[in-house]
Amino acid sequence: MAGSDPFGHRFADQGLLAQALTHRSAGAPHNERLEFLGDALLGLVAAEALYQRFPRADEGALTRARAELVRESTLARIARRLDVGPRLMLGPGEMKSGGHRRDSILSDALEAVIAAIYLDAGFAACRIAVLAWLEPELEGFEINKVGKDAKTRLQEWLQGRQRPLPLYELLGESGDEHARTFVVACRITEPALASEGEGGSRRAAEQAAAAAILEQLEGPR
Amino acid sequence: MAGSDPFGHRFADQGLLAQALTHRSAGAPHNERLEFLGDALLGLVAAEALYQRFPRADEGALTRARAELVRESTLARIARRLDVGPRLMLGPGEMKSGGHRRDSILSDALEAVIAAIYLDAGFAACRIAVLAWLEPELEGFEINKVGKDAKTRLQEWLQGRQRPLPLYELLGESGDEHARTFVVACRITEPALASEGEGGSRRAAEQAAAAAILEQLEGPR
Repeated sequence: MAGSDPFGHRFADQGLLAQALTHRSAGAPHNERLEFLGDALLGLVAAEALYQRFPRADEGALTRARAELVRESTLARIARRLDVGPRLMLGPGEMKSGGHRRDSILSDALEAVIAAIYLDAGFAACRIAVLAWLEPELEGFEINKVGKDAKTRLQEWLQGRQRPLPLYELLGESGDEHARTFVVACRITEPALASEGEGGSRRAAEQAAAAAILEQLEGPR
Repeated sequence: MAGSDPFGHRFADQGLLAQALTHRSAGAPHNERLEFLGDALLGLVAAEALYQRFPRADEGALTRARAELVRESTLARIARRLDVGPRLMLGPGEMKSGGHRRDSILSDALEAVIAAIYLDAGFAACRIAVLAWLEPELEGFEINKVGKDAKTRLQEWLQGRQRPLPLYELLGESGDEHARTFVVACRITEPALASEGEGGSRRAAEQAAAAAILEQLEGPR
């Protein structure tokens, strides 16, 4: 019977689950209204998880952490772990263009499933299911680093280990006066890593370069 | 015992209620973290109320309606009905400057009270209390008018009553080339009302003027 509760919840009303997995392109009833409700449910479960887990975090840190936790790329990652893609009902056009792999469609469907669980079985059941999905995202979550910009985080990473600070170097500028592109290199020595970043300002290019180094140090966020 | 449940909930833990009513200016433990949690709870209860009450509204209309329902001025109005102001703990500076009457402080405290009820008694109790507070706001709520701009709403108001359409007239322009200010008059004949609106574009000034007429017709939103 494992197939009947792929999301950690056994639906009494399978119609709700089917609707949650139906993209607008496949016709009505589709999952857009459920997504609206699921977004609010997810927001609450994420907020409470952070509130309980980080008793000393202030409101600003909690708010930034919640945005990180519920952003599209995070939800799409959870949806992939839960194998949402192959279960989606899509119209032929979306099917052809790979809609079942698209972040936005996956994350919307995940939110709709959250609402479907709530309508099927109430808040407690919904909360338990969603907390289980969020758990891997919350593991090792460092609330005070969320929302800080990449240059600051890289600097703190290095200072915390008493290593030399990064060097940034402007490699080039191009484009018209009103649409310039800057390319910056970032280098650190321990470990010896280098990256390049591009952006519409020198600062943006430096941030992109620092983010690339951070990714090498910490893995993708 | 009516004094013990001013918010439609009798707190087992009076300390939670006290914290929810304590503004940051009065020292710790204050209500900022509770406000973070309460904001998410309110968002969910409002979303579900709209989802259930407007079964044919699409996601866009629901999203706009929710924003209207949970905005600061709405929450401050609810807080005033619940007599939150006189119960607030404020620091001496905020006390002197009338902080217990300020929209932002009232709406933050209301959100914190929502979280306090949740932590005291769970989601079901919290939902019942919040729904009761929202009820007067939802009465007569016209979901398809929310989020439409003021000119459109004014036009629809008049057309729905088969009355003449408004006239807009540019009264003046001033300011530098890059910071111009436009002043526009709006006049309707049934009932005979006039208003002026100001804005950084002619359209913005017209919207402001239409909003002022709507407020005369419908009362403040």
